[in-house]
Amino acid sequence: MSFEYPKLNLVKPVPSDIDIASSAVPLPIKKIAEHIGLLEDEIDFYGKYKAKVNLSTIDRLKDAENGNYVVVTGINPTPLGEGKSTTTIGLCQALGAHLNKKSFACIRQPSQGPTFGIKGGAAGGGYSQVIPMEEFNLHMTGDIHAITAANNLLSAAIDTRILHESTQTDAQLWKRLCPEAKDGSRKFSPIMIRRLVKLGINKTDPNTLTEEEISRFVRLDIDPELITWNRVLDTNDRFLRGITVGQGKEEQRFARKTNFDISVASEIMAVLALCTSLSDMRERLGRMVVGPSRAGEPVTADDLGVGGALTVLMKDAIMPTLMQTLEGTPVLVHAGPFANIAHGNSSIIADQIALKLAGKDGYVVTEAGFGADIGAEKFFDIKCRSSGLKPNCAVIVATIRALKMHGGGPKVVAGTPLDKAYTNENLELLEKGIENLSHHIKNLKKFGVGVVVAVNKFSTDSDKEVQLLVDLSMKAGANSAVMCDHWAEGGNGAIELAKAVENACKETNKDNFKYLYPLDLSIKEKIETIAKEIYGADGVEFSADAEAKIQLYTKQGFDKLPICMAKTHLSLSHDPEKKGVPTGFTLPIRDVRASIGAGFIYPLVGTMQTIPGLPTRPCFYEIDIDTNTGKVIGLTYCLVIKILVKVTRNKNNDVGNINGYIDFPSWF
Amino acid sequence: MSFEYPKLNLVKPVPSDIDIASSAVPLPIKKIAEHIGLLEDEIDFYGKYKAKVNLSTIDRLKDAENGNYVVVTGINPTPLGEGKSTTTIGLCQALGAHLNKKSFACIRQPSQGPTFGIKGGAAGGGYSQVIPMEEFNLHMTGDIHAITAANNLLSAAIDTRILHESTQTDAQLWKRLCPEAKDGSRKFSPIMIRRLVKLGINKTDPNTLTEEEISRFVRLDIDPELITWNRVLDTNDRFLRGITVGQGKEEQRFARKTNFDISVASEIMAVLALCTSLSDMRERLGRMVVGPSRAGEPVTADDLGVGGALTVLMKDAIMPTLMQTLEGTPVLVHAGPFANIAHGNSSIIADQIALKLAGKDGYVVTEAGFGADIGAEKFFDIKCRSSGLKPNCAVIVATIRALKMHGGGPKVVAGTPLDKAYTNENLELLEKGIENLSHHIKNLKKFGVGVVVAVNKFSTDSDKEVQLLVDLSMKAGANSAVMCDHWAEGGNGAIELAKAVENACKETNKDNFKYLYPLDLSIKEKIETIAKEIYGADGVEFSADAEAKIQLYTKQGFDKLPICMAKTHLSLSHDPEKKGVPTGFTLPIRDVRASIGAGFIYPLVGTMQTIPGLPTRPCFYEIDIDTNTGKVIGLTYCLVIKILVKVTRNKNNDVGNINGYIDFPSWF
Repeated sequence: MSFEYPKLNLVKPVPSDIDIASSAVPLPIKKIAEHIGLLEDEIDFYGKYKAKVNLSTIDRLKDAENGNYVVVTGINPTPLGEGKSTTTIGLCQALGAHLNKKSFACIRQPSQGPTFGIKGGAAGGGYSQVIPMEEFNLHMTGDIHAITAANNLLSAAIDTRILHESTQTDAQLWKRLCPEAKDGSRKFSPIMIRRLVKLGINKTDPNTLTEEEISRFVRLDIDPELITWNRVLDTNDRFLRGITVGQGKEEQRFARKTNFDISVASEIMAVLALCTSLSDMRERLGRMVVGPSRAGEPVTADDLGVGGALTVLMKDAIMPTLMQTLEGTPVLVHAGPFANIAHGNSSIIADQIALKLAGKDGYVVTEAGFGADIGAEKFFDIKCRSSGLKPNCAVIVATIRALKMHGGGPKVVAGTPLDKAYTNENLELLEKGIENLSHHIKNLKKFGVGVVVAVNKFSTDSDKEVQLLVDLSMKAGANSAVMCDHWAEGGNGAIELAKAVENACKETNKDNFKYLYPLDLSIKEKIETIAKEIYGADGVEFSADAEAKIQLYTKQGFDKLPICMAKTHLSLSHDPEKKGVPTGFTLPIRDVRASIGAGFIYPLVGTMQTIPGLPTRPCFYEIDIDTNTGKVIGLTYCLVIKILVKVTRNKNNDVGNINGYIDFPSWF
Repeated sequence: MSFEYPKLNLVKPVPSDIDIASSAVPLPIKKIAEHIGLLEDEIDFYGKYKAKVNLSTIDRLKDAENGNYVVVTGINPTPLGEGKSTTTIGLCQALGAHLNKKSFACIRQPSQGPTFGIKGGAAGGGYSQVIPMEEFNLHMTGDIHAITAANNLLSAAIDTRILHESTQTDAQLWKRLCPEAKDGSRKFSPIMIRRLVKLGINKTDPNTLTEEEISRFVRLDIDPELITWNRVLDTNDRFLRGITVGQGKEEQRFARKTNFDISVASEIMAVLALCTSLSDMRERLGRMVVGPSRAGEPVTADDLGVGGALTVLMKDAIMPTLMQTLEGTPVLVHAGPFANIAHGNSSIIADQIALKLAGKDGYVVTEAGFGADIGAEKFFDIKCRSSGLKPNCAVIVATIRALKMHGGGPKVVAGTPLDKAYTNENLELLEKGIENLSHHIKNLKKFGVGVVVAVNKFSTDSDKEVQLLVDLSMKAGANSAVMCDHWAEGGNGAIELAKAVENACKETNKDNFKYLYPLDLSIKEKIETIAKEIYGADGVEFSADAEAKIQLYTKQGFDKLPICMAKTHLSLSHDPEKKGVPTGFTLPIRDVRASIGAGFIYPLVGTMQTIPGLPTRPCFYEIDIDTNTGKVIGLTYCLVIKILVKVTRNKNNDVGNINGYIDFPSWF
């Protein structure tokens, strides 16, 4: 079938994101699927503009050579974001619609909750967007809803089990968990065998268990004070930040304090993002730890008997969703793990599929959340380690505005107009600030990948500023540094970037790719390596809580996992106020937690907000539907955003970024 | 395109539901859609076996004559259920695949939560099922997830608004709700105009509001003690039955007790089921009342500025989902409002679409939850009144087992074997018990519709018993009474029933259809009419709470709404122990509540459980996925069900039925 990329009808000044998105006519997704070589039985349509891609595609193409694998990351951003998502989309539009390469953007599904708060939509921006934007932002193909359902089924299982264990004898629990059939026989369900194996009881006939074994089998003895599994909702509901559950008449003896997180912060989201197949997902979901028993043993989803059911709830979510850019290039949207307590990268499975479909001469561009010190490091050390895939090249997105801030420019505050240091030429501030960029370039080179700097253009940037930026980037070791204007020009504005990426991929030998640290270091050694090598810290200071947790996880055998640092993205250090390249600091580790199913240990540097709130005038005041046409009105027209964020073009795709990290005034 | 109904390969003894369902090969839903006359742009595929049907179908066919409209209801059931869903499906298989009529089953989407508890799947049973059953039971096309999201966005808006109003002056609220643009101008968003109109402030220019008007505009002044809007989750989580929210550091001054309900109990589900178009849904969602202000004024979703956003979240959910029966006849699955505190009927929109597609000679069979005293009465007085559609005929499902129970047979308890009174011939018990059936037949005749009795066959039923049942049904005024065996035989087992329904439709003049009561009676008069005319009560007793609420709702102008009784389905009276036709009782109304958006007042007769729990060994122990084939294992193989419910063939589709009403022992 013939295929033609739709032409953009560029308008100046650039209209609002929603105006651009809603005036675009998307291609039937069937056409895109055919164009990229998917077979009919490899896709499931979800409406006319979305389709889920079956994992059988990977098998069919197992002998094909992978495409070039490019990760988009950034400097430490201002709170306004520097445009990583927009660059990811623009670069793919350039590679595909302008340079005729097979190009795939692999991006995260945005959290729906913040859409109605202050965030507005997240689908790139300007003439580099994913469409239809309301289908991208709302429900999509239900993956996050599936995560909410699975996460909360596990929550219900935990509290209910504690109640049941407290009100029943061993014999009663045994009778109910493993009941007699009519003929008096008993049988374990397969998931029970998993628990027996874990307990070291190598029996499959229930009648042969001793009383002591029965007791160990039926009693998980979860410590209610130490449960680490929270309920989740994809809603900006600050009243769920601290709650007490179990205050009903029959449950009140077991009431306990807990909280909800936003759904994308669920470990199940991280599992979805990091698993490499259906069976891998099944195993990861089963070994998720919900907390310790009173004896300090980790209690898992499979111990609770629910790992299989969680997988069933997630069986459609494991398939990435195919959508398209404004220029008709393919986008795989899949997973969107929280960028602070998780690793903030889209899924391995989407990348696997895209790499096979792209083939030897094609390009897969995937985005890593937050700055390069967090997102890219986690991309390499967690995501690539889990997949075994080797990236060719990293694109590091910067803006002259943000670099000036790193050079000592006045504070950039959401809600106040930008200082003129940012709008007038200022080579001094810029030169100083480029140190932040140079640090990231050097960091990225440590992983053995090519590095291209993409400078998102603002109309106020001067030629001299641009030249300085290019020169110093090259000096720091970048393969190249280029200006881009895909926000205003679509793919056409990123052709130079696309060519630079092509060259960097050619110049780079994939086999040079390496991780920052080996897994067999101790937890502390791994944390110290990241802190010193990537953040530039002098050392690490562990709190007593952190020390205790490290001891616990080591004792439990979880010390060979990679490290997922939960740190601010606004600075290389732990202090968001420290711009540029901070030195002479010690990284404080407040606490250490574990996502065993996802497969990482996450040290907390500072406190994290894991469920956002709503402002006095949330976005939803502007959102409605035209009941005659069915069209959505106002999805990103958000007055609050407009006031808070004067420069909206670089709206950031990091879940929890605007809503999570920044301290909002009390009326938020 | 040629179309052939798939032939059933009947096996004896009848295998388990899941074995039948998973050995069936469903037709591509595209084929079914074409067969029933849907155009390509009227459907959105969701995978290969589900499609959403666009409401434009109704417009296209607006001049077509409606099909025959049949409601399936039942006697007061035993806790085991009597097979309404299975009969609905079996009847449609008979009408479509055997009698070559255009036939549509319109059924409710089951709640997902209970699937993992003790309920197992709900898609009919035996050889009368909807397939694929796991797609029917899990996620489907995301409608319930959309309801969860919309419901909880409104919840977040309520609590956050209370916090914001308590921490800001009028001037601060005004500045934020209606902020100045750069040029100093202010503008109301359209949803704010709705609030102004409600307040009687006929102004559209913010600058002309007086201080007093600004104060009324910005302060909803919701009474935190009287909020009636709960959060929801589609999870069997008993620990959410009583909770305290707002215990985070910044919210703790506003902490309050509340609870979660199961998602299908959300008023938004009732709105979805009762709306007749997109614009109707928009208006209903906007006027949902979340509680009174301190001055006693109803506060709505539109007052909170969120009615439009709720509609946007629900814009796909408004489209019914097309699926198929085992014999390839079409099924529209849409909405599943809780059968106790809501009206328990599938959607009006699905019925509208099906009636147009069926056309003059076709049949639309829709199921009403619970017994005929609740489900059918609500179908006529609430659903048909809202749609303006006139039904032709009611099918009342009975089993000889249940009638014997009504005749004084030993108590039927989930979990204990059936007494021999139920398995041996016993004409005396049966004759006495048929009084319950006769009462329902007479009730249904009051609405002016044809009545067909469908007797679900058990192998233990004797010929004499059957004959007695047929004779007495006819004496009570039924158009006919027939035995059916669609559970074991598929559509072929319901041919006689299908013919009886055809005849009843022919014999009935639709124009004779009438409601039980006019809307302009007072709330008390309407309740009394239902209690006396349908339940056979001597009168009604209102608690002080109920009296106060009736006064409040009357004052608020909500007294012209229909009544949605929340009563046990296990008896015609309010006492589940009273079988047969109880007399000499006064119906106690404990409390009265209102669903203003859905459009009904619901008096509570007794207490309702609105979120189920999990048993010691939930179904999920058996549920897993075969990671090689991707097939779901054990979705309805539920040991607990097997033990509790010896006769599984009549598993009931009423959400909250097994899980909600029955008092389970403490280990549940």
